[in-house]
Amino acid sequence: MRAAVVTSFDKPLEIMEVAVPEPGPGKIRVRLEASGLCHTDIHAARGDWPVKPGLPFTPGHEGVGIVDRAGAGVASPAAGERVAVPWLGYACGTCEYCVTGWETLCEAQVNTGYGIDGGHAEYLVADARYVVRVPDGIAPAEAAPLTCAGVTTYKAVKVGGVTPGDRVAIFGIGGLGHLAQQYAQIFGGETIGVDVTEEKLALSRRLGAAHVINAATTDPVAAIEALGGADVAVVLAADPRVIEQAHASLRRGGRLVLVSLPKDNTITLPVFQTVLKGIRVIGSIVGTRADLAEVFRLHAAGRTQVLFETRTLDEINDSIEDVLAGRVAARLVMLP
Amino acid sequence: MRAAVVTSFDKPLEIMEVAVPEPGPGKIRVRLEASGLCHTDIHAARGDWPVKPGLPFTPGHEGVGIVDRAGAGVASPAAGERVAVPWLGYACGTCEYCVTGWETLCEAQVNTGYGIDGGHAEYLVADARYVVRVPDGIAPAEAAPLTCAGVTTYKAVKVGGVTPGDRVAIFGIGGLGHLAQQYAQIFGGETIGVDVTEEKLALSRRLGAAHVINAATTDPVAAIEALGGADVAVVLAADPRVIEQAHASLRRGGRLVLVSLPKDNTITLPVFQTVLKGIRVIGSIVGTRADLAEVFRLHAAGRTQVLFETRTLDEINDSIEDVLAGRVAARLVMLP
Amino acid sequence: MRAAVVTSFDKPLEIMEVAVPEPGPGKIRVRLEASGLCHTDIHAARGDWPVKPGLPFTPGHEGVGIVDRAGAGVASPAAGERVAVPWLGYACGTCEYCVTGWETLCEAQVNTGYGIDGGHAEYLVADARYVVRVPDGIAPAEAAPLTCAGVTTYKAVKVGGVTPGDRVAIFGIGGLGHLAQQYAQIFGGETIGVDVTEEKLALSRRLGAAHVINAATTDPVAAIEALGGADVAVVLAADPRVIEQAHASLRRGGRLVLVSLPKDNTITLPVFQTVLKGIRVIGSIVGTRADLAEVFRLHAAGRTQVLFETRTLDEINDSIEDVLAGRVAARLVMLP
Amino acid sequence: MRAAVVTSFDKPLEIMEVAVPEPGPGKIRVRLEASGLCHTDIHAARGDWPVKPGLPFTPGHEGVGIVDRAGAGVASPAAGERVAVPWLGYACGTCEYCVTGWETLCEAQVNTGYGIDGGHAEYLVADARYVVRVPDGIAPAEAAPLTCAGVTTYKAVKVGGVTPGDRVAIFGIGGLGHLAQQYAQIFGGETIGVDVTEEKLALSRRLGAAHVINAATTDPVAAIEALGGADVAVVLAADPRVIEQAHASLRRGGRLVLVSLPKDNTITLPVFQTVLKGIRVIGSIVGTRADLAEVFRLHAAGRTQVLFETRTLDEINDSIEDVLAGRVAARLVMLP
Ligand SMILES: [Zn+2]
Ligand SMILES: [Zn+2]
Ligand SMILES: [Zn+2]
Ligand SMILES: [Zn+2]
Ligand SMILES: [Zn+2]
Ligand SMILES: [Zn+2]
Ligand SMILES: [Zn+2]
Ligand SMILES: [Zn+2]
Repeated sequence: MRAAVVTSFDKPLEIMEVAVPEPGPGKIRVRLEASGLCHTDIHAARGDWPVKPGLPFTPGHEGVGIVDRAGAGVASPAAGERVAVPWLGYACGTCEYCVTGWETLCEAQVNTGYGIDGGHAEYLVADARYVVRVPDGIAPAEAAPLTCAGVTTYKAVKVGGVTPGDRVAIFGIGGLGHLAQQYAQIFGGETIGVDVTEEKLALSRRLGAAHVINAATTDPVAAIEALGGADVAVVLAADPRVIEQAHASLRRGGRLVLVSLPKDNTITLPVFQTVLKGIRVIGSIVGTRADLAEVFRLHAAGRTQVLFETRTLDEINDSIEDVLAGRVAARLVMLP
Repeated sequence: MRAAVVTSFDKPLEIMEVAVPEPGPGKIRVRLEASGLCHTDIHAARGDWPVKPGLPFTPGHEGVGIVDRAGAGVASPAAGERVAVPWLGYACGTCEYCVTGWETLCEAQVNTGYGIDGGHAEYLVADARYVVRVPDGIAPAEAAPLTCAGVTTYKAVKVGGVTPGDRVAIFGIGGLGHLAQQYAQIFGGETIGVDVTEEKLALSRRLGAAHVINAATTDPVAAIEALGGADVAVVLAADPRVIEQAHASLRRGGRLVLVSLPKDNTITLPVFQTVLKGIRVIGSIVGTRADLAEVFRLHAAGRTQVLFETRTLDEINDSIEDVLAGRVAARLVMLP
Repeated sequence: MRAAVVTSFDKPLEIMEVAVPEPGPGKIRVRLEASGLCHTDIHAARGDWPVKPGLPFTPGHEGVGIVDRAGAGVASPAAGERVAVPWLGYACGTCEYCVTGWETLCEAQVNTGYGIDGGHAEYLVADARYVVRVPDGIAPAEAAPLTCAGVTTYKAVKVGGVTPGDRVAIFGIGGLGHLAQQYAQIFGGETIGVDVTEEKLALSRRLGAAHVINAATTDPVAAIEALGGADVAVVLAADPRVIEQAHASLRRGGRLVLVSLPKDNTITLPVFQTVLKGIRVIGSIVGTRADLAEVFRLHAAGRTQVLFETRTLDEINDSIEDVLAGRVAARLVMLP
Repeated sequence: MRAAVVTSFDKPLEIMEVAVPEPGPGKIRVRLEASGLCHTDIHAARGDWPVKPGLPFTPGHEGVGIVDRAGAGVASPAAGERVAVPWLGYACGTCEYCVTGWETLCEAQVNTGYGIDGGHAEYLVADARYVVRVPDGIAPAEAAPLTCAGVTTYKAVKVGGVTPGDRVAIFGIGGLGHLAQQYAQIFGGETIGVDVTEEKLALSRRLGAAHVINAATTDPVAAIEALGGADVAVVLAADPRVIEQAHASLRRGGRLVLVSLPKDNTITLPVFQTVLKGIRVIGSIVGTRADLAEVFRLHAAGRTQVLFETRTLDEINDSIEDVLAGRVAARLVMLP
């Protein structure tokens, strides 16, 4: 089969022919139909993070496809079912985090497309317990972005505690932000889209934002304060300055949800305002299998729309360049 | 009557004779029996914060005394009852914060000993609705530290979400910390006392800490990690470096509660660890009347002990110097 | 002025001429524009409940009108502003319930149109702190049903803990139910409308129900179980049998929210199923001022629609008969 | 090996010689050291409940022992470790309940000593993932009652939302109640012990109850109301009348936690009071592996004491008679 393989952290991915993997006990093999390209794939491919993947490996944690073969002892999912294979490829199932609904914090977790081969290929092998069934009526190329961009922003909105009538500011209306905004609205929030280009703001408005702010021409802190301040701010731009603006835009009792990871990794926060205004800063990392199932259910019920463009697996290196150059409107989905 | 009055932000307080205030409608006059000295009094007296008090004024927001006279329309508390007069001297009672249990965030609030005259005097006048009755059996000099140091740390532990079995690290075992530790234990937590002197650690151990760490000689981050990491860290030391250590000592899912206000007001936090570990950073400011009533109820039931030393009102300037020099073991309480 | 006055618990209301009331200190006078007719008004007028109102009195706790005169010491609302005067006419503001966000449980509360004269008149006097401003753009006759039917069902959905994707069964699609359904959807729920007439089910479907069940022809328990069971069931029909059905329709972890008050006051519940399925049965009574402000904000944002018919104050006795006979589609609103 | 086997629902258990079971893949064999006798064992042995166990079977879901042999693929626990084998013998690990921290509601669960052989024997085989390690320093005969009585009451107190200062009434101070009371205190509650014998009330007082009520001589509803009403009532007596009393003893905002299962299975509740007082009735069933680990951690930290008497496995039928006749002070623990 063909796969997009990282063979070195300082070279492009190689589209190469590799053996079709066999599912061991408790595993399934999935024939991929679509595989979203997440920014994390690029970090993985370049070895940007402290704990690097072992080489060679195939990235991709938004893979969607059909169960093709099941290893010993797998009762479900059955061959022929469509599943999504998210970032959380395995968790121990017995630690305090796993048992209390926080499997995404499991210290024994293995991540798809990082610790094990992922979705940018024709086939992958996954732990049968950690894939999530895709409901009928959702196309693979739509399910793919929901598998990481969707569930990650859904969880961010959830831990932000958005309730009806809350003003929710979304900083960065792209592949993640356009979904975050929709989830904030589903939780009953009134959204404010913040970005630096008019196309993104037009998209935000079209998706139902009550207000949009062009941060290139208007100070978002002053503009949000003029609306009464944000109850919740979700930051999807990987820029410490934007995180600091988001913090400053909160009203008392507000919550700042951190999702994106700026390159230099540090933010500077004012203690006085955090204490006096009773602010909470909340780090949020992907979502659980139950969160992803909810994301799919909401999409199947027609409550979200996913923006994406498809590319072929061969185009993965160009696609990465396009993402890095900010040339893509929303999520790119690779077709094998 | 005598009062300790701030007449200039760059001079000591003056113990002067002033007119006994009369309670207007909805107000009561309290004859003070004890008045705790909080670090905030010192900031108030020196005009350290952006919004300064109007001069002259009397600081003090841990005043405890007997209701002596009631203004028009006051049904309760009655003359002769003992009450505490906390930082939250008035809130609007009708805004979203006031109605949802967060009166401490009310934007119209007036603060005792800052926006209006406080407890470092023989008498004060207070809004009848915002004082809290002190249950029988609690001595005034014990009730005073509970009125700010107590309720502030109680609320910090509450918003930190401490539940039985949680490991709770208390950074700074002084006037606030020794109470924070006790509250963490009352919520079921297993506490870790962190300080830089052996006396404080001995106190922490005596109050029931499961572990103590001398941060002058041991790296608290490594030591707490060796215990499995903290579920909750409450920071009562006004030092950004300590806040950063507290953040680093958290296990996944951990919560960092900010209470103290470092002079330079900025902390630097790592985004990657905050997101990956699902950490929450929570600012907490004093507590509501209901929180203070709970604090008193717990003390009346014998579940807390308060460390304090008494001084006379005349000694207030020396007392301030002692606090600033770190020469006091716990809370100082002024007797009028 | 004219008012609909209860002079005896066994006679119809009398439309009589009474003196226009004067607002005392802290009170405002409201010139009514609309006043919704709630089932509770009928119970009040007939003395159905253990603690009866003092005679004579004017019922009505969905009054909406313009502030006309303010008593001493009232800073807000100002004359000319439109306000709603809900069931919670006064609460003490200082008890544990009031301070923790649960003013609707205040033991000292006074209820509009029950303990004090209500909205079925040309004018009423209300405590300035307990009325809620009606945002611009909401017509009085729409605001009226939101003032009790709206906020009561909004709160029921809130305490039921509805989150996105939850299946929420609404038992009874009338004046309350059509609003409950909309709120359940705003919280992200997927709704199931249960009623016994096709018109009500058509309404439920039009408002966005994912499923409707005619309980006159289909067993709702079996039908809801076939959908997977309800996460939340909100009961707005005053019939113990319906409450028992709602309980039986819950899936594991489900919540049954009680709002309506059956005449004989007792329900029989199975302990085994409640324990084994981890079910919660939650009593919910009206909502706070903050809840009502949220209800109005959602309506002003175009997120809800209110069904009502207007009548004149003279028609109040016929209106009561129509309500009791089940001859009205939704809420009746009296115009003075 | 010897086991206490149910061979018929209308005969005593038979102490018989059976084959030592072999652990299959993912399973472990435990050599039992102690096995608590729970009331549920008696219901199981008599086929009291709708879904009966298949015959023959060995009851017991408070088994504690040493891992003796591990089946294929078991990494943990290791041979030689001490583990507890609770009621939740297996759950699917992938359903919404399992993933969100509510494995005790898993519809695919298998229960120890009911659906599979339990602890009243010399050996049992258990799913390696669903046993819980017993910390060093806890004796087997103490760990046994914690494995069901402990975790069940711990969870009941947890879902009751007990927080510091809450008044918590414990109805029934026996094998479960004496633990429930201690957990309520660990969560910060002030407890009220309610029972019908002076010995039980003496025990309750000794364990730290702030108040005790002899329901044989005093009306508990009036007595608790005189204290201000209960915030939380936990019912451990299997009598509908006691549940109804517990409901009536709640103050506004109170929570009634149902744990015990009365024989006739129905309770009658007043809707009016439930709604007006904002009461919650909460069914609670055992606890998760994480809850049990917390229970053990609290015990290892010296925060609980367990009352029990030991018997030998041969005495199991007499022991059952003693339990049914109310002749035992606390939990009976069988030694193999
Ligand atoms: Zn885990
Ligand atoms: Zn991703
Ligand atoms: Zn203070
Ligand atoms: Zn306010
Ligand atoms: Zn009503
Ligand atoms: Zn009140
Ligand atoms: Zn049991
Ligand atoms: Zn399950």
